Amino acid sequence: MKLNFDKLGNGLLPAIVQDYETGKVLMVAFMNQESFDMTVKTKKATYYSRSRDQLWVKGESSGNIQEVKEIYVDCDEDTVLVKVNQIGDAACHKGYNSCFFRKLNDDGELEVVEELVFDPKQVYKK
Amino acid sequence: MKLNFDKLGNGLLPAIVQDYETGKVLMVAFMNQESFDMTVKTKKATYYSRSRDQLWVKGESSGNIQEVKEIYVDCDEDTVLVKVNQIGDAACHKGYNSCFFRKLNDDGELEVVEELVFDPKQVYKK
Repeated sequence: MKLNFDKLGNGLLPAIVQDYETGKVLMVAFMNQESFDMTVKTKKATYYSRSRDQLWVKGESSGNIQEVKEIYVDCDEDTVLVKVNQIGDAACHKGYNSCFFRKLNDDGELEVVEELVFDPKQVYKK
Repeated sequence: MKLNFDKLGNGLLPAIVQDYETGKVLMVAFMNQESFDMTVKTKKATYYSRSRDQLWVKGESSGNIQEVKEIYVDCDEDTVLVKVNQIGDAACHKGYNSCFFRKLNDDGELEVVEELVFDPKQVYKK
């Protein structure tokens, strides 16, 4: 099985992260070959952080790791879908279950539609 | 509400497409500002085709359009989640409900886990 990491021109492909139980889309992150291989091997979701320019084991700071239950690959082999058990119930660094915690309303404004799971100031202490 | 189209360096951002009823992740496509605006305005999912280098009203060839029910925006404002009613039940040009019709098994092989909804040869005639 070969994935195409060349489509975006940076060696990365998008990984869609979905809650295995609820079906909620939690976040989108990027993987290089190494982070994909680590995800498969360790069953802990591992991405490539573009801002930090390094491998990123999701949850290593917050404790909110993602246990990988299933991995799907799309028709073009350039995107993966990872179904996870989200420890701590919050995938978003802003303290929400999902990074998609805001919905576009009819006035074109973003409305927060989730409750905070944790206070980011308490979790990400300096 | 402003989205960040600059993260990937090509003026596009990923749009995750999820079935509004079943919660299934159907596909991932890319949007530029124009396709996002059209999606909001027409309520028909419209993407930017990187292979054809043009706007792409999903389903214009196959008839399998996507009626947009809800749009969510992520914490970084660089990814959108579009919940749709998939006309014809097939989002994938290969004839499956979802582009993620293959699952990675324990041997590291991809296994088809969906039934074909249509025969692509019949739908995309020359």
